[in-house]
Amino acid sequence: MVYLTRRYRFSAGHRLHNDVLSTEENRRVYGKCNNPNGHGHNYLLEVTVAGPIDPATGMVFDLVTLDGIVHEQVLDKFDHRNLNLDVENFRTRVPTTENLCLEIYALLRNSIPQGGAGQRVRLDRVGLEETSLNSFECVGETEGRKKAMR
Amino acid sequence: MVYLTRRYRFSAGHRLHNDVLSTEENRRVYGKCNNPNGHGHNYLLEVTVAGPIDPATGMVFDLVTLDGIVHEQVLDKFDHRNLNLDVENFRTRVPTTENLCLEIYALLRNSIPQGGAGQRVRLDRVGLEETSLNSFECVGETEGRKKAMR
Amino acid sequence: MVYLTRRYRFSAGHRLHNDVLSTEENRRVYGKCNNPNGHGHNYLLEVTVAGPIDPATGMVFDLVTLDGIVHEQVLDKFDHRNLNLDVENFRTRVPTTENLCLEIYALLRNSIPQGGAGQRVRLDRVGLEETSLNSFECVGETEGRKKAMR
Amino acid sequence: MVYLTRRYRFSAGHRLHNDVLSTEENRRVYGKCNNPNGHGHNYLLEVTVAGPIDPATGMVFDLVTLDGIVHEQVLDKFDHRNLNLDVENFRTRVPTTENLCLEIYALLRNSIPQGGAGQRVRLDRVGLEETSLNSFECVGETEGRKKAMR
Amino acid sequence: MVYLTRRYRFSAGHRLHNDVLSTEENRRVYGKCNNPNGHGHNYLLEVTVAGPIDPATGMVFDLVTLDGIVHEQVLDKFDHRNLNLDVENFRTRVPTTENLCLEIYALLRNSIPQGGAGQRVRLDRVGLEETSLNSFECVGETEGRKKAMR
Amino acid sequence: MVYLTRRYRFSAGHRLHNDVLSTEENRRVYGKCNNPNGHGHNYLLEVTVAGPIDPATGMVFDLVTLDGIVHEQVLDKFDHRNLNLDVENFRTRVPTTENLCLEIYALLRNSIPQGGAGQRVRLDRVGLEETSLNSFECVGETEGRKKAMR
Repeated sequence: MVYLTRRYRFSAGHRLHNDVLSTEENRRVYGKCNNPNGHGHNYLLEVTVAGPIDPATGMVFDLVTLDGIVHEQVLDKFDHRNLNLDVENFRTRVPTTENLCLEIYALLRNSIPQGGAGQRVRLDRVGLEETSLNSFECVGETEGRKKAMR
Repeated sequence: MVYLTRRYRFSAGHRLHNDVLSTEENRRVYGKCNNPNGHGHNYLLEVTVAGPIDPATGMVFDLVTLDGIVHEQVLDKFDHRNLNLDVENFRTRVPTTENLCLEIYALLRNSIPQGGAGQRVRLDRVGLEETSLNSFECVGETEGRKKAMR
Repeated sequence: MVYLTRRYRFSAGHRLHNDVLSTEENRRVYGKCNNPNGHGHNYLLEVTVAGPIDPATGMVFDLVTLDGIVHEQVLDKFDHRNLNLDVENFRTRVPTTENLCLEIYALLRNSIPQGGAGQRVRLDRVGLEETSLNSFECVGETEGRKKAMR
Repeated sequence: MVYLTRRYRFSAGHRLHNDVLSTEENRRVYGKCNNPNGHGHNYLLEVTVAGPIDPATGMVFDLVTLDGIVHEQVLDKFDHRNLNLDVENFRTRVPTTENLCLEIYALLRNSIPQGGAGQRVRLDRVGLEETSLNSFECVGETEGRKKAMR
Repeated sequence: MVYLTRRYRFSAGHRLHNDVLSTEENRRVYGKCNNPNGHGHNYLLEVTVAGPIDPATGMVFDLVTLDGIVHEQVLDKFDHRNLNLDVENFRTRVPTTENLCLEIYALLRNSIPQGGAGQRVRLDRVGLEETSLNSFECVGETEGRKKAMR
Repeated sequence: MVYLTRRYRFSAGHRLHNDVLSTEENRRVYGKCNNPNGHGHNYLLEVTVAGPIDPATGMVFDLVTLDGIVHEQVLDKFDHRNLNLDVENFRTRVPTTENLCLEIYALLRNSIPQGGAGQRVRLDRVGLEETSLNSFECVGETEGRKKAMR
């Protein structure tokens, strides 16, 4: 079992604001991230897939295929976008990096094989760095993972 | 003569769009940076001041003073802001990182001593990294600099 | 379950020396880190907390609260200090980065909720980088962690 | 239980090519990595050992000993080498970074104590970064690890 | 005058060897870089162009154009290649990073406008990092540069 | 003319304190860096030498020779030391990073050829990073440099 991590970068704007909270509550919870006109970040995305090494190729997963999935499922939707206004799923959910990480995990989990019968690799982890100080991770907790113990 | 460089970080949103250009021209010139709802970046700012070492303190410039100037002149205005909508000077100028770098250089040049009589230090350089691939610099070209040859 | 990692930095001096060992043994075990007048490092601290996303805020843990805890429990005690002379707990224990990492883990575990009834988040991991070549980690091994498998 | 990670770097050349595949298949599977005369990389190696802190020294593992093992087992064999032509084990196996990571893991596992009776530390993980975009990990899956849950 | 720096990366193999030197001299001058089967690196290339900000676009130089030039002149020739065997100009010159940096500077100087009449921008600098410890720079020394003093 | 930059790292302790200032003045000028028992840093040193490429070797300067000079002149004196107590020149001068950078520049200028008749290379620049936020540079200002315009 080898873990392959591939990094991608995208830039997006967002505003942290929840309509069900009052103006003061939004300001208190989100601080300057609640700025009405929004701000933005360079996000660093890490996608980890786990699997055995294919003896024919010596590889865990074809990188061209992985890049194609990540571009179609993630980068084409989020890169150079305003997350609140341009992304359907964040019209009603706050685009915190936690929610963004979970969204990307869900998008990729549906696109990368997950360890069922005959499927060699599975999505192991999505990491998302918002700034050089903050980063977030979603980790697969499938039966396969429990056995692999990481 | 010693050069001191201090790094700061801020996050902002922007949209590259020039009203005097047509929709197609804007799209052609700015590409995905022209997205109507904007996007954003983590900017890494480097401020370099040059001067002799003060023999009393062993320092070129007091960092607490420098931080105060940069916070007041730059970070308080740009951090967690939308450059197009929240910053007066970019309502009519395109907030490219070139223009942002030049704006920061002008703001700091008016606040940090520049090498005239009795002034020990001068602003030497402002560097601004927009992404891990792109960065910009404005460099002082005063008479003092010409003599110092860097 | 989402993992949030926040980075902090502090600078401190230390000397690796154990009074129960002879002068030669100290020199052999700790090498140049046994220099009588000590040396120092820039430490990079990573604190990871794990928990579900709060649906009201879209966040795992309030960063202002986390920063307050880390400043009070760690940075105020260690930053710009001599670990051997200024920190009570290292007067009798060798301030290796292993021991420092464990000490920080213990300080934070007592301050950040750990996954009991009604507590949303728990300290998952403390990472401590001593130099660009060496880093250390303490990882929670509570019942909750065992179930989450990471 | 503390995890110690130490970083090493080496530079090597390689060519991805499998003799059992046709010329077209090699080109399709490996793309430009199949270039007949090869290319090369700066590899960043991370070796993680896990164990309790030795109360006599305050350390998990002696770094001089670890460096000696890694130099002898890994760096002396791979640094400034052509992996395909200079390394016995890659004459018949494709030197993908997956295979290289697994090879290094096997070399170190035989050299660093693994958690049996009387052995304090064990190899926990080998990480290998091929470029700033791609990295690979092999993780120990011994009984000890399963219990430690990381 | 604003300086724009754009980063590119490529991976290549090389061997340092000069046919006019004896075997012992080659070994003494180049050390392990003289390994007969070669080794390789991930090169980080920085290209700096200098010029005034175009008031119509707010930019110094169009990045799509710059990327096109660098891909055609540099990356297509060197990326995933063996410098000694695959690059015409290094069949008879030793592919040290100094020579590679100078070669890239010459290739780009002939492709990017240099500050003559009617030409807005000029190549200011080519930086080439061979490893995290070694980097090289070639800097333009045209009349324009002498006046700009950097 | 090519510029070669080589990076070195060392760790040292220091205390910023000037005996000619009062206790309150020292506290005001140096803040927490005045802590009586000191603190410390990982310093990143960059040494840039400039010169033409030697046509026989394709190199600007032999790295083994440069490493020998830097180890003898700098690292052996400062690495894993307390700058105030272990380094002669800082017994009476405050070991700010400005003063340390200047000291290293002076030590290397006397050891690396400087551009006179028959000397191929000269020390161009010493950079010293104290933390990820602060760095300092000393730049040669010889006649040769003035002509080279950087």
